[in-house]
Amino acid sequence: MNVLIIYAHLEPKSFNGALKDLAVSELTSLGHQVKVSDLYAMNFKAVADQDDFDTIQDENFFKYQIEQGNAAKTNSFSDDIQVEQEKLRWADFVIFQFPLWWYSVPAILKGWFDRVFASGFVYGKDIGRYDKGGLKGRKAMLSTTTGSPEYAYTPYGMDGDIHEKILYHINHGMLYFAGLEPVEPFIAWTPARDEENRQRYLSEYRSRLHRLSEIPSIPYHPTSHYDNNHQLKVEYR
Amino acid sequence: MNVLIIYAHLEPKSFNGALKDLAVSELTSLGHQVKVSDLYAMNFKAVADQDDFDTIQDENFFKYQIEQGNAAKTNSFSDDIQVEQEKLRWADFVIFQFPLWWYSVPAILKGWFDRVFASGFVYGKDIGRYDKGGLKGRKAMLSTTTGSPEYAYTPYGMDGDIHEKILYHINHGMLYFAGLEPVEPFIAWTPARDEENRQRYLSEYRSRLHRLSEIPSIPYHPTSHYDNNHQLKVEYR
Repeated sequence: MNVLIIYAHLEPKSFNGALKDLAVSELTSLGHQVKVSDLYAMNFKAVADQDDFDTIQDENFFKYQIEQGNAAKTNSFSDDIQVEQEKLRWADFVIFQFPLWWYSVPAILKGWFDRVFASGFVYGKDIGRYDKGGLKGRKAMLSTTTGSPEYAYTPYGMDGDIHEKILYHINHGMLYFAGLEPVEPFIAWTPARDEENRQRYLSEYRSRLHRLSEIPSIPYHPTSHYDNNHQLKVEYR
Repeated sequence: MNVLIIYAHLEPKSFNGALKDLAVSELTSLGHQVKVSDLYAMNFKAVADQDDFDTIQDENFFKYQIEQGNAAKTNSFSDDIQVEQEKLRWADFVIFQFPLWWYSVPAILKGWFDRVFASGFVYGKDIGRYDKGGLKGRKAMLSTTTGSPEYAYTPYGMDGDIHEKILYHINHGMLYFAGLEPVEPFIAWTPARDEENRQRYLSEYRSRLHRLSEIPSIPYHPTSHYDNNHQLKVEYR
C-alpha cells in the first residue's frame, strides 16, 4: 500500500516522534511505500488566507470556500497545498500522528485540514460527502497521545467519552466527511508520565502496523441510511 | 462587565464580521467595556513552538507544556501570549466569534488556545481543572456560523448532535477545562446561503447581547461530582 503519515509534533525525541519513526521503518520493511508530511519540519502554513491561491476570484469579498472551489477548477492552489493534495491522491492509507491538544489536533494540523481538505477537492458541488467524499477508497487512522489517563475518557469519565465526544469531530467530521474510511484510532494514554508503558505501546503499535489492512473500521452510517432531511432512517437507529 | 471578543475571520464583510461589529457596538452602548482580539488582523501566530518563550528550560528535549509551566513562573511568555493572557485576566465574559470549519475552530483560533491557555496559567500543578480552572469566575460563549443546516446537527442528523458531539470538545474541553463557565452558544445556521435570515440572526443576537448575564450556562458537572477515578458518581448519572 501507499501510506501517507501526517505528523504534527515539534520535538523529534518525543513519543509522537518515536511512533512516527516506528511506522516509517516497520511499514517500509513490510514493503509498503511510505511518505511523511512532517508539518513542523516543513514549517507548514497553518492559517488559511488569500495567499493560498495564485489568483483571487473576488478580492472585494474574500470567501475562502468559493476561492477553494475556483482553485480546484483552475489548478491554482498555492504550491504547498497542491503538494499535499497530490500525496493524498497517491495514498491508500493515511495515518495522522499527533498529540491530543485541547481535545483536538494541534493548530498546525488543523490548518492542514482547513487548507488541504478544500472545497472542490474533498467535497463540493460535484463531489459527495462522507462515503461519497472526494477521498473515498482510502482508509485513515488517528494515532494520538493524551495527557489524561484512559479512565477519564470513559462514557462517565470527567473528560468525556474519547470516541463519541472527543475524537468524533475528527474521525467523523474531518476524515469521514472527506470520504476517508476511518479505522479504530491508536491511543497511547499519558506516555509522557509513564516510562514503563512506552515500550508496551511501541510493541502494540508495531503489531497494529503489521495488520494495517485488517484494523476494524469505525461503523459510521453511509449517507444512504439518511433521509432527505439528513435524519438517520428509523430502521437504522 | 469587561467583555473580551476573540474573533477569527479573515473577511471584514463576512457575517462573522457583522456579528462581531454588532457585539462591539451593542455592548459598548450598554455600558460594558469591550476589547477585541481580531486574530487575522493581528496576524496572530497559530503554531506553538520554541519562539513562544523568552528562554527555553531544556533545549535538548523541548516539551511544550513543561516550558509553559516554566514561563508562567518566570513570566517569560512571548509578548503576544502575555497580551492575550492579560486580556483574559481583565475579562468577565469572553465571546468567541468564528466560522465552524471542519466541525471545530479555524486553525488560527486553535493556535490561540494552544498557546494562550497555557499550563501554569489556566491549569497545572497548583491550579485545578474545570470548575477549579485558572479562569474560574468568568463566563464564555461561542458564537459561530455553520455551512450545514440545523437539521443536520440534530441527535439523528448526518453531521452529529451539535452540542453533544460537535461543540463538546470546545465548550467542555477548552472553555470549561480552563475554568470558564460556558453559556449556551449562539449559532447562525448557513448564513452564507440564507440572505433572508441574516437580519433575523442579527436581531436575535442583539437581544441576546442585551441579556448577556442571563444566558443559561451549559449544565456541566462540577469536579466534585466525580470520584477519585474521575468517574461521575452514580447519584449524578
